[in-house]
Amino acid sequence: MEFFTVLPLTQLSGVMPKTCTLIRAHPFKPWWQRNSKPARFRCQKMYVPGFGEASPEKKAANNMHNFFTYIAVRIVGAQLESYNTEAHKDLMEFLDKNSLNDGDKFCAALMRESPRHKGLAMRILEVRSAYCKNDFEWDNLQRLASQMADESDTKLMRDYVLETSHDPRSD
Amino acid sequence: MEFFTVLPLTQLSGVMPKTCTLIRAHPFKPWWQRNSKPARFRCQKMYVPGFGEASPEKKAANNMHNFFTYIAVRIVGAQLESYNTEAHKDLMEFLDKNSLNDGDKFCAALMRESPRHKGLAMRILEVRSAYCKNDFEWDNLQRLASQMADESDTKLMRDYVLETSHDPRSD
Repeated sequence: MEFFTVLPLTQLSGVMPKTCTLIRAHPFKPWWQRNSKPARFRCQKMYVPGFGEASPEKKAANNMHNFFTYIAVRIVGAQLESYNTEAHKDLMEFLDKNSLNDGDKFCAALMRESPRHKGLAMRILEVRSAYCKNDFEWDNLQRLASQMADESDTKLMRDYVLETSHDPRSD
Repeated sequence: MEFFTVLPLTQLSGVMPKTCTLIRAHPFKPWWQRNSKPARFRCQKMYVPGFGEASPEKKAANNMHNFFTYIAVRIVGAQLESYNTEAHKDLMEFLDKNSLNDGDKFCAALMRESPRHKGLAMRILEVRSAYCKNDFEWDNLQRLASQMADESDTKLMRDYVLETSHDPRSD
């Protein structure tokens, strides 16, 4: 599944940062008492180009949505395996023939396969929604991503230094 | 970029749910006063098979990490374009030759290209970390993903009903 499409970086027609605030020199003075200092923007966030009218958060949410469909299919598959082998077989056979890359497309096709498959699709939709809202640990995701950024930085720089530094024992 | 590898659903040797608690019938009674009720598990979360020793959160964090590298490259590219066209050209040329699918691999290769490229790589690492920790709106991601689950459910079911229902005007 494509996590994101790498757009050319030269395509910089993006949105303005979301938290830009127009700061005026004297916001409460009438105009004739104001000096000629120009209005300026105070932007607290970095400008991310190339997302058009969407945002990085929207793009990430879209991919999380597909990820949750994948998780829901796994959960339902595991539940059915033990007590409804027929439905489990139906789901596995459908999975062999259809890609899970686009979650909604997969569910739409599953609904239309047969009335039995429709039941499976409804269950997957229910599990997906419940997993996203109740089970998935969003705080944990944020903590892990932040930790990963730190650990990767350290590893990349350590590897580089070890590779390029002069070893005095080799003299 | 592969958001996740679709593992076969039959591979169900997963981890136990994270919030399973062993509940005993009389936790504070000595054993000779206890009756014979067996210990039981109270699991609040759905069992997600097939992630081995990792977790769905870890998998998602790994993909967010690569996404942040992509975002950082875009941010640095946009910053350089206006005031350091030489460095911008270096980055664009390097991007043409190297894939951004694996963020850490991309940064490691950029560091080793030349001392000038190393400066670019250090800047990308710094921006990536700052973006992940300060700029990215995690709450917004959760809200959008949850909203997307609801909207998709409604859309899928509405489309199905419209497609399969009997139109009385056609009689």
